Amino acid sequence: MRLSRYFLPLLKETPSEAQIVSHQLMLRAGLIRQSSAGIYSWLPLGYKVLRKVEQIVREEMDAAGCHEVLMPSIQPAEIWQESGRYDDYGKEMLRITDRHDRAMLYGPTHEEVITDIFRRSIKSYKDLPQNLYQIQWKFRDEVRPRFGVMRGREFLMKDNYSFDLDREGAINSYNTMFLAYLKTFKRMGLTAIPMRAETGPIGGDLSHEFQILAETGESAAYYDAAFEDIDFMADDLDIDQLKSLYAATDDQHDPAACSVPADRLRSGRGIEVGHIFNFGTKYSKAMGALVTGPDGQDIAVEMGSYGIGVSRLVGALIEAFHDDNGIIWPEPVAPFDVGLINLRPGDEACDAMVQDLESKFRRAGRDVLIDDRDERPGAKFAAIDLIGLPWQVVIGPRGLKDGIVELKERATGERVELSPEALINRLTA
Amino acid sequence: MRLSRYFLPLLKETPSEAQIVSHQLMLRAGLIRQSSAGIYSWLPLGYKVLRKVEQIVREEMDAAGCHEVLMPSIQPAEIWQESGRYDDYGKEMLRITDRHDRAMLYGPTHEEVITDIFRRSIKSYKDLPQNLYQIQWKFRDEVRPRFGVMRGREFLMKDNYSFDLDREGAINSYNTMFLAYLKTFKRMGLTAIPMRAETGPIGGDLSHEFQILAETGESAAYYDAAFEDIDFMADDLDIDQLKSLYAATDDQHDPAACSVPADRLRSGRGIEVGHIFNFGTKYSKAMGALVTGPDGQDIAVEMGSYGIGVSRLVGALIEAFHDDNGIIWPEPVAPFDVGLINLRPGDEACDAMVQDLESKFRRAGRDVLIDDRDERPGAKFAAIDLIGLPWQVVIGPRGLKDGIVELKERATGERVELSPEALINRLTA
Repeated sequence: MRLSRYFLPLLKETPSEAQIVSHQLMLRAGLIRQSSAGIYSWLPLGYKVLRKVEQIVREEMDAAGCHEVLMPSIQPAEIWQESGRYDDYGKEMLRITDRHDRAMLYGPTHEEVITDIFRRSIKSYKDLPQNLYQIQWKFRDEVRPRFGVMRGREFLMKDNYSFDLDREGAINSYNTMFLAYLKTFKRMGLTAIPMRAETGPIGGDLSHEFQILAETGESAAYYDAAFEDIDFMADDLDIDQLKSLYAATDDQHDPAACSVPADRLRSGRGIEVGHIFNFGTKYSKAMGALVTGPDGQDIAVEMGSYGIGVSRLVGALIEAFHDDNGIIWPEPVAPFDVGLINLRPGDEACDAMVQDLESKFRRAGRDVLIDDRDERPGAKFAAIDLIGLPWQVVIGPRGLKDGIVELKERATGERVELSPEALINRLTA
Repeated sequence: MRLSRYFLPLLKETPSEAQIVSHQLMLRAGLIRQSSAGIYSWLPLGYKVLRKVEQIVREEMDAAGCHEVLMPSIQPAEIWQESGRYDDYGKEMLRITDRHDRAMLYGPTHEEVITDIFRRSIKSYKDLPQNLYQIQWKFRDEVRPRFGVMRGREFLMKDNYSFDLDREGAINSYNTMFLAYLKTFKRMGLTAIPMRAETGPIGGDLSHEFQILAETGESAAYYDAAFEDIDFMADDLDIDQLKSLYAATDDQHDPAACSVPADRLRSGRGIEVGHIFNFGTKYSKAMGALVTGPDGQDIAVEMGSYGIGVSRLVGALIEAFHDDNGIIWPEPVAPFDVGLINLRPGDEACDAMVQDLESKFRRAGRDVLIDDRDERPGAKFAAIDLIGLPWQVVIGPRGLKDGIVELKERATGERVELSPEALINRLTA
């Protein structure tokens, strides 16, 4: 992609309405633009990141045996009246009346819709377990939307719903999601700490929230140092050990009662990016989601729901990975792998080298953004730093005379001069 | 994927509320379930097809030089008041009031939002042309939603918007989209006939709609036989010739005035799946989307918008490709490439062969659905026919004794017996 033909409106000034660094950088780097309070348009660079985050989540849900569906954003009020949540939800629910005066709403979550699908489709215990997920936009009409996509009104969630015959099956589904979440966040370069949580209005008796660590996180977090030694990508993680390790946000943490010895207690700041719930038969009983059991009797299915804030994660990633010059994307979610800075567009040797490198990177499956604008070098370095591509390659007439280009790693700032061949080898190995 | 672990609720009876074949088959084959009038949930099999259609559209938009964005579904009323369309739109627009009594709406289209983004981002003619697209859910509050996803209220569109400095550039953008559309539909196995259309409330003076041919199409279509000889995938299509060929739906067709000789006039039935518009400066003038031109003066940009009904296409594909036994997916949009029917689950030889074929197909990148249910053969054949996978492979104990399996092509009904090795060679070549 050539920057001269791309749509990347960068801002020189930090917009005054943005209070936290991820919001500031998402606006400055041209990732999003506000449409109304707490509602954003995703511009090309930001949408590429969002789709990469979404795809990692999707792959891990598929790997965990879940099936992807898509439920509508506009839901009928009736099913919320059935579950008993229609009145509970209050003003956060965006209530809508259609042209025939039917009461509808923009879904803040989808327990009712999925339970309705389930009860119309599954009749026998033989068709259990089931675990269905979607990646869908939701709406919560926050009183004071703020912090950009971290607390928006229209936001993208991955939510899934498990259906089991009994409590044992339900705990098994819960544990599968617990491990899938740790892996999902790790694949984006994030360390997530699972913390036992209150279940709140969603109901049930077992719940964890997943906080990723970031210096600028929204709440203080305390956790057992053992978390730092765990390889979350391992296939043989001990779920019982993980669930037994101490971790708490400041509102839950009680230093007096904390079981972790002081030398093993770590503190940091966290951002909530996921939340899992087992809520038993709350919805299945209220809405009649029954299956015929092995002995011919009707049984209300055991359910759980599991959420990941997909659009929130884009903000959380920036909170975790940035410096004074801008964003530092981890490679798996970077919008482009490499930024090629052409110091002298129009110079025959520079243009030819840029084109040659671009086609070599493309053949190796690496996505490249070329800064071919007619700007001074400083502006180009600043732009590529700001948008946070993991690797920067600088091509200038002076270096080319000696057969070299410069490679900079965004995360470390480390620079090396090397031949174009060595560059390709290094970044496509 | 094993059918015993999948979520595929098939219906034996044709639901009485479904009037047209695509709606009937989408319900029976477990692709969708209605949530409220004109609003559907996409179940795993249907969502796979929707995502394949979406991805073909995305690839062709990218190839045409467009950049993907995502605009919100909930829009502020103000920008529609600015463009002058807020009152025009009537009851089809789902109007919403948020908790602070602000007038919002669920976007039926996004000209206003994109023009707002553009005017805040692009200031110079040097940054033109631009062509931005999104694939996003929209809402039109139809009085009588019907025909399933063919005329739903919540529906998925690809919409894009071009911005050019002058009329010549705008026509060039229009022509680029015209050709991209023909190619997009062709990649799904569909022949689309472009027809000159009225611009209607969107404004402007140049518009084409794209109708795909299907025996059960919604309107009669008349067109020059020359369309049947054109290779829409060719890179050297003559846009002027294409635009000059005669084509009209019945409300536009006048046999007396038709310029095509009778022996070259074809008739069929069509389904509208795309619509493109050039509308000049209608929105840019109303909303102040101006750029500084080469001579320093402000110029209102020339715009066009281009839509493809992505969710509608799933219905249209079924209208075009089905028989009495069910759906016949073209390979590029099929939810799975191959259905493996295990006639005797539990039989050691059958199970081993199924597993071996599955892993060989997987390695070749072919997506396989295995019917491993404890059902009689007839029910399995009917299920795989109904859901329309392009290839069916039948594995039974009798055949395996002779070292053969049976391959059936869904579209032709042609059956051959062959060795497992020959099967793999044939379907993965």
